[in-house]
Amino acid sequence: MAESLDPARLAAWRSYIEASQRLFTRLEEDLRTDSDLTFADYHVLVLLSEAPRHRLRMGQLASRLVFSPSRLTYQISAMQRRGLVTRQACPDDRRGSEAVLTATGLLALREAAPHHLLSVRRHLMDDLDEAEVAFLARIFTRLGERLRAGNTDTTHPTDLTTTG
Amino acid sequence: MAESLDPARLAAWRSYIEASQRLFTRLEEDLRTDSDLTFADYHVLVLLSEAPRHRLRMGQLASRLVFSPSRLTYQISAMQRRGLVTRQACPDDRRGSEAVLTATGLLALREAAPHHLLSVRRHLMDDLDEAEVAFLARIFTRLGERLRAGNTDTTHPTDLTTTG
Repeated sequence: MAESLDPARLAAWRSYIEASQRLFTRLEEDLRTDSDLTFADYHVLVLLSEAPRHRLRMGQLASRLVFSPSRLTYQISAMQRRGLVTRQACPDDRRGSEAVLTATGLLALREAAPHHLLSVRRHLMDDLDEAEVAFLARIFTRLGERLRAGNTDTTHPTDLTTTG
Repeated sequence: MAESLDPARLAAWRSYIEASQRLFTRLEEDLRTDSDLTFADYHVLVLLSEAPRHRLRMGQLASRLVFSPSRLTYQISAMQRRGLVTRQACPDDRRGSEAVLTATGLLALREAAPHHLLSVRRHLMDDLDEAEVAFLARIFTRLGERLRAGNTDTTHPTDLTTTG
């Protein structure tokens, strides 16, 4: 069938999806326990901390997080109530708004980061050798670029309809 | 710091987490559009279809999905309302219950699977060469085994506190 995966690829896919979902669940449990943050909270804090002037337009943030606008609004509202971020009108576009990191948010990130990175090391990265680290970076850097470019639907349109 | 990752590992980690979250979002969008199923629905259908007599105890299912008991109850109730699964008392333990695949559920899986696998090929697997497939399987098979065994918290406790 055109739709099937060969056995090696199917096995690799299933290992990856199952272990990743288990890993993300574990990392989020650690993050909640250590720092009272969700994965999404943490990711927002990282993105804002690295942005110029600690602020990003809501649309940019939604795109980076792969969140729908309504999900991002919900996420940012929850973080506003905790004082981690604020929302401000864009200086150059009154219809748009930006999420802005607060000092409280920056401190929360600084406190959470060492625990989170320790958790990432313990659960995943300390177990990988150099070659595995290199392959992980290679596979997922390329995937990220393809997905951000939005062109993964059309990579091999001919193959997909004719090789099966 | 004991908690930090070296630059190569930090870059690999960030590529992996960001691309994976983007990928899973994309795959779920495809699954909803093509088959009106969530990722969790699909995963439940796969697990039940592969289980002996198409049934699993709720506890086993929760463990495989890495779901809390309450989240699994919610998930299975939603699938029951759509006729995809039923719940039955365990024959050997009246306090326990099992989720059982229905014919409707099996047909839904059979109809969804080719679309989903095509989506997995297009977005990820067709872009990987043989060496990348092998590394993906190797890294994530080992990770899955470690996480299922629950021993990832204590892999290198000494290293983590002493290697600065």
